[in-house]
Amino acid sequence: MTVKFAILGAGRIGKVHAAAVASVPGATLVAIADPMPAAAEAIKAAYGCDIRTIDAIAASADVDAVVICTPTDTHADLIEQFTKLGKAVFCEKPVDLSLSRVKDCIATVAANKGTLMVGFNRRFDPDFMAVKAAIDAGRIGAVEMVTITSRDPGAPPPEYITRSGGMFRDMTIHDFDMARWLLGEEVESVFASASVLVDPRIGELGDFDSANVILRTASGKQAIITNTRRASYGYDQRIEVLGSLGMVSAENHGENRITLADKDGFHAAPLLNFFMSRYTAAYANEIAAFVASVAEGATTPTTGHDGMMALALAEAALASVASGRAVKVSEVL
Amino acid sequence: MTVKFAILGAGRIGKVHAAAVASVPGATLVAIADPMPAAAEAIKAAYGCDIRTIDAIAASADVDAVVICTPTDTHADLIEQFTKLGKAVFCEKPVDLSLSRVKDCIATVAANKGTLMVGFNRRFDPDFMAVKAAIDAGRIGAVEMVTITSRDPGAPPPEYITRSGGMFRDMTIHDFDMARWLLGEEVESVFASASVLVDPRIGELGDFDSANVILRTASGKQAIITNTRRASYGYDQRIEVLGSLGMVSAENHGENRITLADKDGFHAAPLLNFFMSRYTAAYANEIAAFVASVAEGATTPTTGHDGMMALALAEAALASVASGRAVKVSEVL
Amino acid sequence: MTVKFAILGAGRIGKVHAAAVASVPGATLVAIADPMPAAAEAIKAAYGCDIRTIDAIAASADVDAVVICTPTDTHADLIEQFTKLGKAVFCEKPVDLSLSRVKDCIATVAANKGTLMVGFNRRFDPDFMAVKAAIDAGRIGAVEMVTITSRDPGAPPPEYITRSGGMFRDMTIHDFDMARWLLGEEVESVFASASVLVDPRIGELGDFDSANVILRTASGKQAIITNTRRASYGYDQRIEVLGSLGMVSAENHGENRITLADKDGFHAAPLLNFFMSRYTAAYANEIAAFVASVAEGATTPTTGHDGMMALALAEAALASVASGRAVKVSEVL
Amino acid sequence: MTVKFAILGAGRIGKVHAAAVASVPGATLVAIADPMPAAAEAIKAAYGCDIRTIDAIAASADVDAVVICTPTDTHADLIEQFTKLGKAVFCEKPVDLSLSRVKDCIATVAANKGTLMVGFNRRFDPDFMAVKAAIDAGRIGAVEMVTITSRDPGAPPPEYITRSGGMFRDMTIHDFDMARWLLGEEVESVFASASVLVDPRIGELGDFDSANVILRTASGKQAIITNTRRASYGYDQRIEVLGSLGMVSAENHGENRITLADKDGFHAAPLLNFFMSRYTAAYANEIAAFVASVAEGATTPTTGHDGMMALALAEAALASVASGRAVKVSEVL
Repeated sequence: MTVKFAILGAGRIGKVHAAAVASVPGATLVAIADPMPAAAEAIKAAYGCDIRTIDAIAASADVDAVVICTPTDTHADLIEQFTKLGKAVFCEKPVDLSLSRVKDCIATVAANKGTLMVGFNRRFDPDFMAVKAAIDAGRIGAVEMVTITSRDPGAPPPEYITRSGGMFRDMTIHDFDMARWLLGEEVESVFASASVLVDPRIGELGDFDSANVILRTASGKQAIITNTRRASYGYDQRIEVLGSLGMVSAENHGENRITLADKDGFHAAPLLNFFMSRYTAAYANEIAAFVASVAEGATTPTTGHDGMMALALAEAALASVASGRAVKVSEVL
Repeated sequence: MTVKFAILGAGRIGKVHAAAVASVPGATLVAIADPMPAAAEAIKAAYGCDIRTIDAIAASADVDAVVICTPTDTHADLIEQFTKLGKAVFCEKPVDLSLSRVKDCIATVAANKGTLMVGFNRRFDPDFMAVKAAIDAGRIGAVEMVTITSRDPGAPPPEYITRSGGMFRDMTIHDFDMARWLLGEEVESVFASASVLVDPRIGELGDFDSANVILRTASGKQAIITNTRRASYGYDQRIEVLGSLGMVSAENHGENRITLADKDGFHAAPLLNFFMSRYTAAYANEIAAFVASVAEGATTPTTGHDGMMALALAEAALASVASGRAVKVSEVL
Repeated sequence: MTVKFAILGAGRIGKVHAAAVASVPGATLVAIADPMPAAAEAIKAAYGCDIRTIDAIAASADVDAVVICTPTDTHADLIEQFTKLGKAVFCEKPVDLSLSRVKDCIATVAANKGTLMVGFNRRFDPDFMAVKAAIDAGRIGAVEMVTITSRDPGAPPPEYITRSGGMFRDMTIHDFDMARWLLGEEVESVFASASVLVDPRIGELGDFDSANVILRTASGKQAIITNTRRASYGYDQRIEVLGSLGMVSAENHGENRITLADKDGFHAAPLLNFFMSRYTAAYANEIAAFVASVAEGATTPTTGHDGMMALALAEAALASVASGRAVKVSEVL
Repeated sequence: MTVKFAILGAGRIGKVHAAAVASVPGATLVAIADPMPAAAEAIKAAYGCDIRTIDAIAASADVDAVVICTPTDTHADLIEQFTKLGKAVFCEKPVDLSLSRVKDCIATVAANKGTLMVGFNRRFDPDFMAVKAAIDAGRIGAVEMVTITSRDPGAPPPEYITRSGGMFRDMTIHDFDMARWLLGEEVESVFASASVLVDPRIGELGDFDSANVILRTASGKQAIITNTRRASYGYDQRIEVLGSLGMVSAENHGENRITLADKDGFHAAPLLNFFMSRYTAAYANEIAAFVASVAEGATTPTTGHDGMMALALAEAALASVASGRAVKVSEVL
């Protein structure tokens, strides 16, 4: 079976997914929708697909699945619209910035026996997959401590901060999902300590740019997430998992793998500076996984539930910052 | 000036300091005291010093300085006894397990214009000194985030747990001192999340074996400490400091620096497994620094105040675990 | 200008180049030729090109450039046929196993003012390009010593040995080209020491499986190449260049970038095991460079002369093994 | 049994050995000899030994063993003098710059059933010992290729060049010994390619500053040595051994183990810049091994034969440079 795709939104991330759909065996790109004609034309030119409106795509019998790359505030509505029509949906995170809206949306998907995969691309990074495989193979025994270092190369402009829902919902949400995935046990409580150290304008908008978060499960396993919006040396993305028998960790990716030695010592390149270059393989792999699930009628590797849980951790982190105490996830869900 | 030393206690750490005193130019070992004759004889045989009782050492005109390596519950009394006599004192951490007793002791030292250095050996590790030097040289700009990973190779026997004062006062206390030293600004609040994941007997004794701690200063700088009592791959001692312009970090020390490659991949040795082999140079350097301070009449690089503050952070961490909230250091001091 | 391509030969390397042509902006794949219908059909199905015979391609007005991926003994004839027709030619190494035939072929290309690029893919590896860029930027001063470690994961079957022309012409030839490129000065003499240590059948066929080669320029710069046909830990491809002011080196590429630590130490994955996965980016980059040269009417980054010189170094190495002395390149050219 | 030592020569290396003798259990330093009173006094002050003339030491009943740290041209005579007297001898390399004199000296030692250990300190470096242990434990299968990179941080002054016997006899001799030790099979032939790239004055004196050497055994195993007199990034000392089942290698030692990351990338310290700081542990270990051999009446781990063979490889290398061909060791021995 070949899965016939439409992509909603031809912006930066839409282009990434279009390329992925075009290159994955078992998938074809049928249509692209975007209010900006030039963006849609570029995708059409590259992959030979149609340009259609979102409504036309909804009415298209030759579309099995859609990838939602539109602005965040349209995600939940589109998910509901397309799952009701029986089309499989891949949606970029987040489903919505409101947890209650996410819950409603997931309920609608469930009521319609829909297929919804939320785009937590990092689960599909080859190195992180190797970390997870080592854990699942028992190489480190029982998981005890997960350490996630996640630092952006630079802070986004203030206007982005506002519409993103803030650092926890926008940036840390990926780390929350990684922590849940690696802990292998649901998080029970969240403590977060957030600071404004990079850009005071971010603080003026009520957001943070630097934070540490401790997640804890019922059995006492813990995850620590350390975030900042500025790492001069590039996009710093490390995970480390300690277990009863050992530790497994994933290294950063530099711009190249050469070393220069001179009288001042040994020098290596900065890290890849952009999430798209760092996670190129992850984006391709996640679409391939979605295609495989749709083709097999199987559950997708990430679901609306994962999107909801990661958002719940973000809500708990915000409540923790406000109260100065560890907040139970059950308080916000 | 040659500083004439006596060492109180000829146990494991007493031997380390005896070797250091013997090798540091400007210091000579005059006497050793220990209730176990064999232990004292071994030091005498190795370095040609006298064996005297503690009281005899207190009365010795040929002793300028003492190194206190006796059991913890004798530290504060001995510090007071010897500083009143005008002898410079180097004391292994902690000054006492009771914060109020530590405060009294420090007050006594101050009242007598005594010299007291508390043994936070890690500040004298060559790599950690290089990290601090890089920070002080402005290489990473303003410090924002300190990350300390500190894992013992294996848990101590339960009987040790009881008399040690528990993980925060015994093990994390070194990390608390490192965090204070590296943050460059006093810690304002502490959140700690502690678990029993390694040995249930430790939990039965009311202690923990796995913990994450977040320290926070008034300006929002943060430090995260991650501790466990069991790291199968050896004694894991890493620090990493993020600043506005960059990051500086110190690597672990393996048993050797060879790599074996075979069909299964690349293999390197486990880490040095014992704090004494890992910190050999640090122990020698800290005694050299004490000697230099005494010889010059200068303030020692670590003081009773440092011992008190690290213990206060441990108390705050315990209060945080009990309450589930961030605890201000001012609440416990 | 879009360069219109035909690929001659749809085998393993033909597929690699077809994918490269299809993905490079400014190039289109017009036709594929192969005596095996299934191989040609696979390329057609993937990229939508025609299937034509080599002679039909020669006669095609809609073909600007060809990529020669046919067996080695056809290369020189095809180069001559297509350059005479005014088509740009990219040919996999070697031009021919006979140095005199290579010289004739290059003369024919020159007489017809043809464009010939020989496929030394490693020059287009991103890491090796970064090494060369560092040298060209003066970062290591004057080049003095080039060290190339080049080890195959496993020996080819004996039947391949025979038709390959032997290790120096087949495997080391890439290293000879790298050495010439990095030395920045033509090689004057060659000493080679070759052994049979991996597979005695290779020795029975008159070839070697393990060798060290020293290249030397007129000014005394040197390059050392170390080759073996068996590295249990994967495809080992390292270069290191020492200059008057420093050194620059390129690391190997492992299957992933995770590290597992356990009681036995630290473990990383074996190296990528196959030249195509190791040099994926290099193959794409070299076709892109060819397209750019053809589009601009510029000299290609590698030429028939480079192919000839690398083969001459192989001939000199063989003469050195036979004579036990350093052989001047002028003796074989 | 305690081995009672005298050290002949209180220069730089004499001081290193005095410290080693003083610290090794089972050894005591009885006497030091040096024509420079200040040098001998310094040793006496540090370790409490006598100052005696060499002849007085020869006549001393309380001396079991001597360490010869005098100028090279006195080594062979002193070895003969002291072994005839029944004293165990540790001699810094080389025994002599003349191979025939070395042979005579060794014959004299043998005729007197003397004990002679030649100071090839690198065999006692902890990392290189771990490499050898891995080989001996069968971890890499049969040894096939040894690669030794040995680069001095800077060239010695021209006046040293003259009296040192030249690069092969002075610097490469350590690498020749390492190669013999690691190959596990005697070297049959030597090819060397030597250049003057660092300092033309070295060339004017008839010596070289940059060289590659290929050693080959009867069974075809090979070792490659790459030497230069100038590595801007420090004292570069690497070994790598490839076998049928894998590879084992030893890394360099930097001045510290911290990494600084900033906008330009990741930076580590230069290498330790001096052979004495790089090989501190090796010098201590080699004296301990000598003491153990003398105490047990066992053969020393290195012998006069090792000194002779390393010098023979140097002679063969010189003959190879002169002739441009591989030279058999049997031609020079």
